[in-house]
Parts: sequence; structure tokens; C-alpha cells
Amino acid sequence: MNQQTTWPHHELGKELSNWGRWGDDDEIGTLNFVTADKRVRAAQLVKTGKNFDLGMPFDKDGPFPSGGFRINPVHVMTFMPSDTASSPDGMISADDMVTMGLQSATQWDSLAHVGYDGFFYNNVPARALNHMAGATRNSFARAVEHLISRGVLLDIARLKGVDRLEDSYEITPDDLSAAEARQGVRVESGDILLVRTGFYQWFLEGDRGHFMGNEPGPGLDCCRWLYEREVAALALDNWACEVWPSQIKGANIPFHQVAIRDIGLTLGEMFNLEALAADCERDGTWEFFFCAPGLKVTGSVGSPITPMALK
Amino acid sequence: MNQQTTWPHHELGKELSNWGRWGDDDEIGTLNFVTADKRVRAAQLVKTGKNFDLGMPFDKDGPFPSGGFRINPVHVMTFMPSDTASSPDGMISADDMVTMGLQSATQWDSLAHVGYDGFFYNNVPARALNHMAGATRNSFARAVEHLISRGVLLDIARLKGVDRLEDSYEITPDDLSAAEARQGVRVESGDILLVRTGFYQWFLEGDRGHFMGNEPGPGLDCCRWLYEREVAALALDNWACEVWPSQIKGANIPFHQVAIRDIGLTLGEMFNLEALAADCERDGTWEFFFCAPGLKVTGSVGSPITPMALK
Amino acid sequence: MNQQTTWPHHELGKELSNWGRWGDDDEIGTLNFVTADKRVRAAQLVKTGKNFDLGMPFDKDGPFPSGGFRINPVHVMTFMPSDTASSPDGMISADDMVTMGLQSATQWDSLAHVGYDGFFYNNVPARALNHMAGATRNSFARAVEHLISRGVLLDIARLKGVDRLEDSYEITPDDLSAAEARQGVRVESGDILLVRTGFYQWFLEGDRGHFMGNEPGPGLDCCRWLYEREVAALALDNWACEVWPSQIKGANIPFHQVAIRDIGLTLGEMFNLEALAADCERDGTWEFFFCAPGLKVTGSVGSPITPMALK
Amino acid sequence: MNQQTTWPHHELGKELSNWGRWGDDDEIGTLNFVTADKRVRAAQLVKTGKNFDLGMPFDKDGPFPSGGFRINPVHVMTFMPSDTASSPDGMISADDMVTMGLQSATQWDSLAHVGYDGFFYNNVPARALNHMAGATRNSFARAVEHLISRGVLLDIARLKGVDRLEDSYEITPDDLSAAEARQGVRVESGDILLVRTGFYQWFLEGDRGHFMGNEPGPGLDCCRWLYEREVAALALDNWACEVWPSQIKGANIPFHQVAIRDIGLTLGEMFNLEALAADCERDGTWEFFFCAPGLKVTGSVGSPITPMALK
Repeated sequence: MNQQTTWPHHELGKELSNWGRWGDDDEIGTLNFVTADKRVRAAQLVKTGKNFDLGMPFDKDGPFPSGGFRINPVHVMTFMPSDTASSPDGMISADDMVTMGLQSATQWDSLAHVGYDGFFYNNVPARALNHMAGATRNSFARAVEHLISRGVLLDIARLKGVDRLEDSYEITPDDLSAAEARQGVRVESGDILLVRTGFYQWFLEGDRGHFMGNEPGPGLDCCRWLYEREVAALALDNWACEVWPSQIKGANIPFHQVAIRDIGLTLGEMFNLEALAADCERDGTWEFFFCAPGLKVTGSVGSPITPMALK
Repeated sequence: MNQQTTWPHHELGKELSNWGRWGDDDEIGTLNFVTADKRVRAAQLVKTGKNFDLGMPFDKDGPFPSGGFRINPVHVMTFMPSDTASSPDGMISADDMVTMGLQSATQWDSLAHVGYDGFFYNNVPARALNHMAGATRNSFARAVEHLISRGVLLDIARLKGVDRLEDSYEITPDDLSAAEARQGVRVESGDILLVRTGFYQWFLEGDRGHFMGNEPGPGLDCCRWLYEREVAALALDNWACEVWPSQIKGANIPFHQVAIRDIGLTLGEMFNLEALAADCERDGTWEFFFCAPGLKVTGSVGSPITPMALK
Repeated sequence: MNQQTTWPHHELGKELSNWGRWGDDDEIGTLNFVTADKRVRAAQLVKTGKNFDLGMPFDKDGPFPSGGFRINPVHVMTFMPSDTASSPDGMISADDMVTMGLQSATQWDSLAHVGYDGFFYNNVPARALNHMAGATRNSFARAVEHLISRGVLLDIARLKGVDRLEDSYEITPDDLSAAEARQGVRVESGDILLVRTGFYQWFLEGDRGHFMGNEPGPGLDCCRWLYEREVAALALDNWACEVWPSQIKGANIPFHQVAIRDIGLTLGEMFNLEALAADCERDGTWEFFFCAPGLKVTGSVGSPITPMALK
Repeated sequence: MNQQTTWPHHELGKELSNWGRWGDDDEIGTLNFVTADKRVRAAQLVKTGKNFDLGMPFDKDGPFPSGGFRINPVHVMTFMPSDTASSPDGMISADDMVTMGLQSATQWDSLAHVGYDGFFYNNVPARALNHMAGATRNSFARAVEHLISRGVLLDIARLKGVDRLEDSYEITPDDLSAAEARQGVRVESGDILLVRTGFYQWFLEGDRGHFMGNEPGPGLDCCRWLYEREVAALALDNWACEVWPSQIKGANIPFHQVAIRDIGLTLGEMFNLEALAADCERDGTWEFFFCAPGLKVTGSVGSPITPMALK
């Protein structure tokens, strides 16, 4: 692999690198911005007690097409009331099991998910991942406890006055700033930022093909904005958290590369922001307490989640 | 199945039944006690921003013995940096998958997990569970958004002045009240109650056999206490959330039967309460913001979780 | 469940019942027809050494639609050459894992697969199946060693002079006899009978929807023919081994019910008979040595197989 | 990786290499020795029709320890008689699913399983394996149809006059020749050779720890013997098909390396040879028809099997 690359996203990555910022052993990147004080202030945002479930159901009707890269969750019953013949007191019970991609449906991508030139975030070599132990560095298991903070939602679809953004629309830094201005909110250090494209509606309408296709999302230029604002984690209501296909010829998910590997930014995908955004538009409050700790799977690269927002 | 049973736990269950209390269609039972107002007050407990991860790691070294009822989580890498030959820009990535019981390690039991005499909570017949759809009633998917509330920890081991309770020690209602008195805290309507036995230390010390064996835990008599206090959910630091083996001859997990089926109480198991309890003992504060939303798996009977407590 | 049924297939089942024929403990039904002598004579059919693989590949591109009843096999690599850093001598290795329905793709249905009125073959009650142990009676594990015998192929598509039979064409006993006459072969006691409809070509052409749809296959009337000929096992080149949809209103897979439960006939599905049939047509020899032992999974209901025919 | 190695097993591998022998595209190695003529002569060995199941059951009580490299098969019921409420005619059915290593229990190792210095058999680079497609070269799927041939059993335990060989006993070429002499049989080109150590008895006696430990098996020197005799495939009644631990310091499974990568020899493991060997000793016939086609899983590295021997 060629370290002397001149790819524009790699140039940008070098500029925005957080490697070493929190020590050579750091495995959570910008989640370091979520301080104890931040959690206190996030909790103070809970004023009415309204809660919003931002998760996609985990089931066989999930977004992935048959024969593709990832499978939809396979849920099976492993014990059933009919198995209780041996209970003298009539006890019945049920148990179940799931086989699922840890990046199935609504999910976090850890800092072991994407890198380039042989390295992941914070100088972690590709060989830090192996099949026996999974991700021995940058595992999602390190991130779990840090995914509670102030959440801010920026609604780019509403900014543009549309139901949902066009396929492959590239969200720009100006869009993010304009959304802040329209909404009267400001993204601050340690926030978990949710960006709405409206694209999730394709999934709700049952058009998985469209949903999993050419999606609107942040372009590479947003990386600097996110870096400067010290965003702790970013999540979108689409499948790849960035504009698809890539706007840079020959570059595969360049936003992921810079965001995850260089900035150390945990990314969230397939968040259902519909109800939350409607409520925020109604009450004018675009900040909330956000939690989505996920599962502490040892050596994991990502985690399925059912994120919650409280206002 | 004989509806005319005279089993003592079933008699008690009839007395403490919450069936119909929140309507005939209710599927979440005592989680109804978690009101919007409750969430607001829970959030106000976040004062220092300290956070505590109460979860067991999900991995092959989990608590279940080989050849037994449930398997420990099987985590496999499904994509690796070595697969990226087709990326002209040197992008590398990784993906992973898990096969796991939904009641693996730290978990919630939903109201579809245990019943008796052919019925689960709120008059749901056994046939409401099937293999195609899982639990069509009382699924954990209904409970997800309600598992955020005020948490209270009662430390029975510290009450008794021991490192950990003896095997098969039966926790009584008096123990719960005495722990409240010692700690200066009171369990209120809508709380998520965590009860510490210290038994989790067997797991931490690597003695899975002991941990999965004859455990201390609440006896049947605690049901009335939990009912009267309107506890929303109960979790322990052991594997079955109740004293084992059963103190009633011929009755299999009688506490589960009454708590889950009659009271409609969601139960949590294998919570790591060690660090949290030590901190509470230190600062004298036994209440906190608690969240453990889990995964919205359609038709699921339980959910793996990494619960968080914030003070 | 009503034992006094007057369903025509159940009437026929009573007439053709093999219950008790090989003892009350028998779990393999008509596979009892495969005697040691039968195996000797089957082996004598190997004259040129030509071998034919009758299996469908097991992979994610299998026949099952997304979100349906069964999943296609999920094959994952669990160890890879990149994991061998610790081998001083440069050893590399790979390992893999599969999650699959035991009735995925080419398969046998055991005598625990289908029954009616609460019973499976040979008076085995439904409760003989449970989640801890699977099928404690009639498991496929009992059948494994018996699935080697003389194979005979009857080509109904060629009989009718068509490339493939029409959708939902019902194969009759007369068709079977006519195919024997045309081909100059006779089905005898202990044979494993393969019946070709040509429907497999839909799968080969990539039209999974058509392949998994309204298929031609044996109608209920064929049961008597199969019973009288003492066929040991029957396999087809379609997904359900019988005409679909059912020709009896209200009856679900009636042929399966009688064949498996009453006659005790092991059924095979999704066999690729294209090359074998072409060869048989060419050389006029429609009998061969057949083996498809499958996997001895304890308590299993079926087995994936890659069947082989030798001539 | 250093191509200029001076490891003794790699030196031997160079000498015994079959790379290119059957063309640059060959993916099955010594299975090429199984000719049509060979199959005809193998079939002629079926004289009494006795059949022997050489497989280990696939279930949760398999040989692998908890928390280790591979899991034992996980078998779950995915449909049960209790799910048939919608069948007007009382039809009941069951379906099941398995999650298992393809090298679980009795199995074949394909030519994509082990290599060294970055290459597998026949100059296949490590990168021919990837996570999306598995083994794109040397997959077990290529081997399936060739695993039917004459089988010969050499009983080294009986040769030595012991119940089972000692732990870590190294079987030598002289042992193989002496067993031939004692038994009056000769291993010929295209044979599938089964070698009995008696070690399987540890498994039968429930001592999985011993069975999975320091096993007797062929040493590196046997490679030349196997090469010269043109053995098509080799299988043993232990877990690794070679003496363990390695008799060459620093070399990990050197026999595998030479046998699989250089000779192109498919290896079988965990064959239950007890009953077959006893029968051979009784009747003095150590040759038989052997078939173990396994599963045609696309891109697979190995296959679970239930092998059969017919005499």
C-alpha cells in the first residue's frame, strides 16, 4: 500500500488528524469530547420527559437485499411453551437467538471499521484485527459507555424545504451552518450530531432498493466542519452516513475514511429521525439528551442499537 | 394444563396480578410506571456526570457452559482489511457478525419469557408465540423505549456485612427495607431497581461454574414488596434474578412466574454492580439516571444490553 | 386436533399406512427396504465410473427470497491467512462457518418433518420434538446410513416431450408407469426414485421466483404407486416434491402428509437432474448407484446434501 | 513472508510438490487419482452390503471446548408442530437450522485450508481467499464429487497390539508398510486411506480434553509414502490428522503444510473407525467402497461429513 498517496481525501485527513491527541493508546477518538460535565448538561435538557425511539426494527424485513454483503437479522425461537412438559407447576417459557451483522440496521461504526493505507485510527495497523479476537484495538467495546451526550438534530431536508433530499445530494458545510441558523441551535464540543436527509422515508414506504441506493449525505468537505466543532459522533438517517456514490472518482467512501480514521469520529447509520424531527420543528427545540450505548461485544467493529432521544 | 392449581406462587400471583390494569392490550406491564415526569426527575439525578457500565462483555468466554441450554456469543469477522484489493485509494474496512442468545450475558427478560398455566402476562396465550414471528405479544420490542428511568441500587451484601451473599441465600422483603434504611434511599413508583448480591464476583474471578450455580436472590415473598412499591423493572447481579434452586418444591423459578406473568415486571440478569455499588457506598448516593434500552428485535423474548448508570 | 377427520388424503394415508410394519420403534420407514442385498446390487450398476453431482450450491444466491420462511446459507470465513502472524514457519490457514437451514437447497426431509392430527410417522406424537433435543424420534440422524441404494430416474418432462413441465402440472401414477415403459426401466423395492420435471431449469436460468412458485409435481394419487412399488425414498428437481399449490382445497402439502407420515417415505428436494437425465437419455440406462448420506445432526429434521449418482 | 526458507518440511514439500501436475488450474490435487475406472473397481468391493457410518454426531456435545477456536454445532428448531394453527387439515411440521464450523466434528479439509509462504496448493496466493466469496480457488466445492473411491483402512493400533496409540506417538512410513503386511492389503493409486490410531475412543468415553490434546498421528516422513502411493485422500480418527504437537520445533502442523499445500492431499479428521476396524479384523478384508461427498458450499474451506464404508 502506497503511503505517498496524493488522494485529496487523504490530504484532508492528514490535516484533520486527531492521532495522538488523546494519547497513543486512545481508542475512542472524538468520543473523548464527551466529558462528565457534558453529560450533566445533556441531562438538563430533559424537560418534558418525551422520549423518541430512533431505531429500525431488527428483523428479516430489514434493508439488506438477498444475496448481498450483509444479511438481515435472523431471529429464531430456541425454547417455547410447548417444551415445558417437565414443569409440574405448569411453568412455560420461551427463549430466542439472533444471527445478525453487528452493522445490521441502526448501528454504530467503530474506529476499527474503516481506514486506509494499512492503518485505522490512531496508528492502529490492519493486523490489529484478527479472526480469533476481532478488533484488538479500536473495538466498539471501548466506545459503549461514551455514547451518551447532548444530541443535536440538523434537518437538511426541512432546510431545503423538501420532504426528502434528492438521491446523491451532497450535504455541504454551508448546509450544516444554514440549518443551525434556521433552527437556532449551535453544535458544540462533545455533541452527538444527527443529520436528517429524509431518506429514511424510502425504507418506511417499503422501497428498500431505493433506500439502499444512491443516497444524499455529507460530502468530504463536511469533515472540516465536524472537526472544528468537535462533534463526538455523527449519525444519519441513511445507510452509509455519506453521499453515495462517492463524489471523488476512484475513492470508496472517502468521508468514512477521513471521519473514522483521521478524525476518529464514530458514525451512526439508519437512524429513524422522522418523529423526532417533526417534534423539534413543532417545539423549536433541536437539542436533547441522547443515549445509544449499544452492545459491548468483545473485539467488535460495530454495534446494533436502538438509540433514544429525551427532551 | 390445570387452571385449578393450588400452588402457593400461583395464589400469590392472582393476588398481585396487574392484568388489565393498563388495558387489555398492554404489553409492557410495570414499565407503565415510567412516566414522562419520571424521566425528567431521573435526568435531574445526573450531577457529576460519572457513568458506570453495568454490562458483561459479550464473547465466547461468557458464563454458559459448553453443551448447555444457551450458547455464549459467537463473534465472527465477515470482512477484513485483507479483502480490499479492489480499492484504488487503499481503503480498508472490517465488518462482523454475531450469533447469540438474546438472553446471553447481561439482558432483559421480556413479558413473553415466562408464564404458567398456558398464559403469559395480561392473558396472552402461549400460542401468541410462534416460530415465524416470535412473540407476537409481550415482545421485548415493545419495552425498549421504556427502559430509561431513575435507578436505585440496594446492596444486600453490604447490608449483611459480607463480600457476597452465601449460595442460595433467599433475599426477603425485610432485607430490601433494611437496605433502604441503611442506605437512606427509598424505592418509588417507576424506579428500575438494582439489587446487589455480590455473586457477580464469582464470574469476575473466572469461576463460571459457581456463578451459574446455586445463587442468592429474591424469594417469592419479595413479589409483594415489588408490587407495592410499583417497581418498573428489577435487575440483579446473578444469572436468574431469583434464589436458586427454588425454595418451593416442584416449582420452577416461581419468582419469575409471579413477577413476569402476574405483576408484569421486566427482569434483568447478570448486571455488573461492583463498581457502581462501591461508588454509592463512597458517596452515599444510591440513586441515579439509568438507561438500558436494548435492541428492538421484532418478536423478541429478551435483549442483550450494556446498561448504563449516570450520577 | 380432530382425529375424526374425513379429509381424503387422511383417508388414503390410513390405507397406505406403514405404521408398525417395521416395529413400533422404527424411525426410518421405507428406508427399511434398502437391504444389504440391495446395496450389493446397486454397486453392481457402476459400469463406466461416470459420476453425477445432483446438488445445488449452498450459498447466499440460493433459492429462498429475502424475508421469507428460510434463509439461504450464510457462509463466513472464521480464520484467514492474514491471521497467521504467530507462525514462525510462515504457515497460513483458513477456516469457515455456515448458518443454514437443514432444509436449505438440495435436501432430505426426515420423517419428523411433516405429520397431521398431532402425530408423525409411526405414532410419534408432536411432543417428541422439543427445542433442547430437536426431533427425539424420526430424526434424520437415524436415516443417514440408509440413503445409499439403487437409484432410478423417471423423466416426466421427456415423457411429455417438453423441456419442462407446465407450472402446477400434476404428475399421475400413469405418468410414472408410462415413463417406465418409455425408458425400459422398472422401479423396484428399495429403490431411491428420482423424478424429473425439468423445473430446475428455472433456477439455473436465475428465475428464483418462478422456481419457488407453482411447481409441477406428484399428486396425491402417486402415493399408492410409491407404496406398492416399495420405493425407499423419493426426490424431485423442484422445491416441494409435490404439485403446488395443493390440488385439494384446504389441504396443505397433502402428498407430504401421506408420503412422510403414513408411508414413512423420506423426501428429497431441489435435486439437479439435468445432466444425469441427459446422460440417461443418451445411453438408455436409467438406473445407477445412488448415495446421499447427508449429515448426522443429532435431533435434525432434515439434511442438506450433495447427492451423487454413479453409472 | 520469506520465500527462501530452509525449514525441513518446506524442503520436503518442494520435493513432493504436485503443483502443475494436473495443470495450472487444477484445484483438487490428488483427488485426480480417483478415475472413473477406480470408481468401477471400488464398487466391485461391495460384496455383503454391510455399511459402516464413520461419522461423529453433529451436536452441542461435540469435541470443541467452550471458549475455543471453533464452536460445536448449534442446532435450533425454526418451525414446530405448535406453529400450525393455520392448517385446516391438521397438518403439522417442523424445520431446523444449524450454525456450525465447516470443520466441525467429522470433516474434510480442502486444499484452501493450509499453506505456507503466502501460497496454497498449486500456486494459489493467499489473496484468493476473501470474505465475500470465501475460497475462490481450491474450494471444497470442487472436491465434492471426487470423494468416492476405494477405501483402505490401516490399523496402526492393532499393528502395535494396543487398544489405542500413546499420546503424541508419531506414525512412521514403516508403520504404514508394516500394517499393510500384517493386514495383507496394499494401498494403491486413487485410494482413500483411513488410518486408525484408536484415539477416537477418548471421545467415545467422554474425555474430550484428552481427545483434543496430544494426539498420535502421521509424522512428516509419511508424506513421501503417501506421495509415492498416490493416495487420493487421507483420514484419521483424531482431530488433526497428524502427530501433535509438532515434532519440528517452531513448525505448526508441518504434515498439513506439505500434505495439503505441496502434495495437494485432501485430509479428513475425526473419523470413527472403531466398528469398521473391528469388522475388518474379523473378516480379514481391509478394503471397501468409500463415499463421503460432503456439502457443496460455495467458497468453502472444508465440509462436515458423515462418511460411509460399504463392504
